[in-house]
Amino acid sequence: MGPLPDLRRMRVPLGPVAVFGSSNFPFAFSVPGGDTSSALAAGCPVVIKAHPAHPATSERCFDAMLRGARVVAAPEGLLGLVFGFEAGVALVDDPAISAVGFTGSVAAGRSLWSRANAREVPIPFFGELGSANPLVVTAGAAAERSAEIGAGIGSSMTLGGGQFCTKPGLLFVPDGEHGDAVVAALVASLRELSPMTMLAAGIASHFRDGAHAVTAVSGTSLLVGADLEEGTSVTPQLLEVAAPIFAGAAARALREECFGPLAVVVRYGTGDELAQALDVADPALTFSFFSAAEDPDASWLAELGQRKAGRVIANGYPTGVGVSWSMQHGGPWPATTSPSSTSVGAAGIERWLRPVTYQNMPAELLPEALRDENPLGIPQRVDGSRH
Amino acid sequence: MGPLPDLRRMRVPLGPVAVFGSSNFPFAFSVPGGDTSSALAAGCPVVIKAHPAHPATSERCFDAMLRGARVVAAPEGLLGLVFGFEAGVALVDDPAISAVGFTGSVAAGRSLWSRANAREVPIPFFGELGSANPLVVTAGAAAERSAEIGAGIGSSMTLGGGQFCTKPGLLFVPDGEHGDAVVAALVASLRELSPMTMLAAGIASHFRDGAHAVTAVSGTSLLVGADLEEGTSVTPQLLEVAAPIFAGAAARALREECFGPLAVVVRYGTGDELAQALDVADPALTFSFFSAAEDPDASWLAELGQRKAGRVIANGYPTGVGVSWSMQHGGPWPATTSPSSTSVGAAGIERWLRPVTYQNMPAELLPEALRDENPLGIPQRVDGSRH
Repeated sequence: MGPLPDLRRMRVPLGPVAVFGSSNFPFAFSVPGGDTSSALAAGCPVVIKAHPAHPATSERCFDAMLRGARVVAAPEGLLGLVFGFEAGVALVDDPAISAVGFTGSVAAGRSLWSRANAREVPIPFFGELGSANPLVVTAGAAAERSAEIGAGIGSSMTLGGGQFCTKPGLLFVPDGEHGDAVVAALVASLRELSPMTMLAAGIASHFRDGAHAVTAVSGTSLLVGADLEEGTSVTPQLLEVAAPIFAGAAARALREECFGPLAVVVRYGTGDELAQALDVADPALTFSFFSAAEDPDASWLAELGQRKAGRVIANGYPTGVGVSWSMQHGGPWPATTSPSSTSVGAAGIERWLRPVTYQNMPAELLPEALRDENPLGIPQRVDGSRH
Repeated sequence: MGPLPDLRRMRVPLGPVAVFGSSNFPFAFSVPGGDTSSALAAGCPVVIKAHPAHPATSERCFDAMLRGARVVAAPEGLLGLVFGFEAGVALVDDPAISAVGFTGSVAAGRSLWSRANAREVPIPFFGELGSANPLVVTAGAAAERSAEIGAGIGSSMTLGGGQFCTKPGLLFVPDGEHGDAVVAALVASLRELSPMTMLAAGIASHFRDGAHAVTAVSGTSLLVGADLEEGTSVTPQLLEVAAPIFAGAAARALREECFGPLAVVVRYGTGDELAQALDVADPALTFSFFSAAEDPDASWLAELGQRKAGRVIANGYPTGVGVSWSMQHGGPWPATTSPSSTSVGAAGIERWLRPVTYQNMPAELLPEALRDENPLGIPQRVDGSRH
């Protein structure tokens, strides 16, 4: 046996990335934003498919990015922008594209995901799709803070006109007077709100279609929002349904995201009813619960949340998403197509990289990050120990 | 705006994992081995589909693992073992399975990968499939060390009867006398070898079928191995083809892995011929090159290798695979179904984990790894700084 080989491993860029801009964050998650910046940080050129809801904003943002690229003398072809459905499909099919980042609807996301898998060379597809984001109020929390929680939910579900991927859409509230008080506070807070302007007419009309579909489910009652307004303007909608009905197959439509200011209150009697209703709820980006001090329900809800979602929130609302080291914005299927990834936060860069090991490579052929003298001063692990 | 939330992120187990044992490593990559141990280390129960080439070994290994599990009072149901094609398919379809680890042929791996994607809830499928593992001898290296390199290739391609996923199967050797000397040394080393016993009769018969298919390609000449033996016994095979023929569409069969002691020598005249032939070679687990000191070809070959493979080897043979922090055993499609993963080495555990963020979670509900007092003493990053 000869000497052990010299092995050095690092991650390298996957190659050109296609980014599908979202409708709801024209600045933070569209032409510029998390997908684009993380892919560029990984060393990947980016071609963006502009969202049809804001073509002019997309073009102006892209121009600003191009100017910035010129200032730093970035390579030609680092950034691209395409418009239209067919251009988006062609992008996913293009042999030069190595991975896709997508934020949007379940239907569009799954269709493009299938297409990425059907290529001669399939490519990773990181889709952040719809999510109903369950939120549970325990009996203990309802008894303690009904008014505060009800009003807080009203603010969270209507933040930005409900156009957040993390909008709490399924609200599990106990039966009885304390639960009634939570719902009353929520209803009151929603009734105070003016009609809301959606980011695009298409979003508003999708919202109205979705609201009609869920109110048509047998066994639901409408608590707020008979009037759905017109044009880009919509009014908040709140429905109520009993947990056993929600858990039944006929109520399947209630479990899906309705993008905009709509939520479904699911009223439960016992812990078993709550558990059964949560069991049929799809995995989500977030799972929130409100509990009291020493609440007997807190522990199993925290554990359930960890299985059901990418972010578990105690006594708080899911709508705020921070760009930080510790943010996870992604959850089990169908919330995302790739449960091990995040589209927000420092770890977003990991989507666009793959590892390569260099064996017995002469120093002059090694990437700088792997050289003994470590000119980039990056953290390394040497013979298993962190440096 | 309120205070910033407390966010803590860690990775949690995906859930029960299905492992498809390989044919060629009954101990290191079958019932026990890298996939099983990394999934258990991640906290995932494992159900193994035994490879039909060694059912008795599989059963005895599984019994030993079960005894070990009992000694440490592991939970019931931590380990499972199934036999047969249909049981394997049922495993991939089972809603209780969260991810699949597979080592085997391109055909079987792609079929199961498609099946994992076609589930109602698709699951990650980590397939380590076939790989032809290109190896290049530069003109400089051939001039310097023809005998040593030729003999070394002969040992590497026949190690374990050529039943390594990393066997060098495509050998790019320059035209001319120095290249002739490499090939002569390789031929001589193969002619010294006795017939080899394959691990199973099925592997031997697949090998003979594959060898017939490649020798039938027009423009190839057989340098070693007219006799293919019988039963589980085979003889090493070496073919030669000119680079322009190899690069043509008619020679497609030469680019595929032939599992066993067979390699194709691709003779090139110019650097352009070499580059064109390498261009049509599929991405692979490994890419090796032999170069001289200050070799003008070393730099572009190292760069090409990084794009084409998960491990790039300078002046060495790819067959040795170590279990270490810095090993990468995986490469771009079609070598693996997931280019960002490895099935060997410390990073193999990452396949079975997904991140979860805990927001404002009371200390008693946090996983131990995320508590302020860090009782497990694990490395953490706090406010962006490593601790």
